[in-house]
Amino acid sequence: MSEQTIDQKLRERDLQLPALHEKLKEVKFPFDWVRIRGSRALVSGHVPLAVDGSMCGPFGKVGKEVSEEQAYAAARITTLAMLGSLQRALGSLDRITAWIKVLGFVNATSDFKNHPKVMNGCSDLILDLFGEEVGAHARSAIGVGSLPFHNAIEIEAEVEISLS
Amino acid sequence: MSEQTIDQKLRERDLQLPALHEKLKEVKFPFDWVRIRGSRALVSGHVPLAVDGSMCGPFGKVGKEVSEEQAYAAARITTLAMLGSLQRALGSLDRITAWIKVLGFVNATSDFKNHPKVMNGCSDLILDLFGEEVGAHARSAIGVGSLPFHNAIEIEAEVEISLS
Amino acid sequence: MSEQTIDQKLRERDLQLPALHEKLKEVKFPFDWVRIRGSRALVSGHVPLAVDGSMCGPFGKVGKEVSEEQAYAAARITTLAMLGSLQRALGSLDRITAWIKVLGFVNATSDFKNHPKVMNGCSDLILDLFGEEVGAHARSAIGVGSLPFHNAIEIEAEVEISLS
Repeated sequence: MSEQTIDQKLRERDLQLPALHEKLKEVKFPFDWVRIRGSRALVSGHVPLAVDGSMCGPFGKVGKEVSEEQAYAAARITTLAMLGSLQRALGSLDRITAWIKVLGFVNATSDFKNHPKVMNGCSDLILDLFGEEVGAHARSAIGVGSLPFHNAIEIEAEVEISLS
Repeated sequence: MSEQTIDQKLRERDLQLPALHEKLKEVKFPFDWVRIRGSRALVSGHVPLAVDGSMCGPFGKVGKEVSEEQAYAAARITTLAMLGSLQRALGSLDRITAWIKVLGFVNATSDFKNHPKVMNGCSDLILDLFGEEVGAHARSAIGVGSLPFHNAIEIEAEVEISLS
Repeated sequence: MSEQTIDQKLRERDLQLPALHEKLKEVKFPFDWVRIRGSRALVSGHVPLAVDGSMCGPFGKVGKEVSEEQAYAAARITTLAMLGSLQRALGSLDRITAWIKVLGFVNATSDFKNHPKVMNGCSDLILDLFGEEVGAHARSAIGVGSLPFHNAIEIEAEVEISLS
């Protein structure tokens, strides 16, 4: 394990976590972006967010309006959105002791087949930031028929956290 | 926290939980509607049920045969179905100490975008009955290509329970 | 509970678990097929695999290219693939003390409605091998718009394991 904090790693990679998205006030979200019980932190389905917290897309179907490369980048950006919510909920991302599970929803055409490559945008970033031991996770990737606000990607996750 | 029991709150709101659905005998369901291990209760995917336990719909695609308003109501009714299964499994809904996670499947057209509004039919009821602390939950809402028996809505959940 | 080991039961039924799929080297899978934390083992989304670990299909849409019967068989074969990964991760399948949850993704046409019958291919095998007590599980079955490599079936799961 590196001695660097996750914050230091993010800065080193010039990555910024998005703010809480203030711009989505027309929709009620009566749930928690992160639900914590004991050592479990459940991360709600996130979509790609810009640094100001607004939804930045891409919008549309992967395999049609959205390319595989754009979808990979979107999965990476969505992971930053999850990290932003985790940081607000936990105080520090260094409290994450293990990634447990990632479930990736790809809004794809019915003949799209490279969901794993797309979701590697999420897994690659997690492993880069948290290392092979803490960052290891189970994963499923599926193609969905539609997503909120026409987003191309939505991801949910569960992580294990230290209690203090 | 209110001193009222969940049963009292249901009666006050004139809400009835559906019976175990006896009418679905043509299909085998070789799984548990609620699986309990320690303090975790996992709730299988439920669909909207009438008070007698039969499937009441709506059937079809949200955004086509089923309106957004009907889908919101269906998510609420599906939540009552989950509560019915939880009551049978736990003896009392007051054993629920925390909602953990809700995953909502909306059988929507490919251009539908208001899945969060639809799933608020579930979240709003949970928060109304269980309060902001116990009722808080992580949530994902996605659009699926098809659902069992052409249902418009299916929801699964996890709750935390007291051991006694 | 039977005194037989799961291995004995598999042999008795002439069932073989697939090898780690070596043939899929063109795709990176930067995640764990089984992620273990404490007594929880999370099983990543699996697809049907031949005994040599290669993807064996069926490929295409259930309700069109793939029949309901083929999809039932595919759910059963996918369960064997999950058991293969669990055996490699745990050393022995007898360490499984409880099945917790199964989530089945059926790559179906939009008018398909028998997802539960299809997913019984998974649940029936789990109950046959592990018995009614250990094998009991919560389950959801949904119809997805597309799956990795055009597979007809993908399944993920969570099981409880003994710590030693």
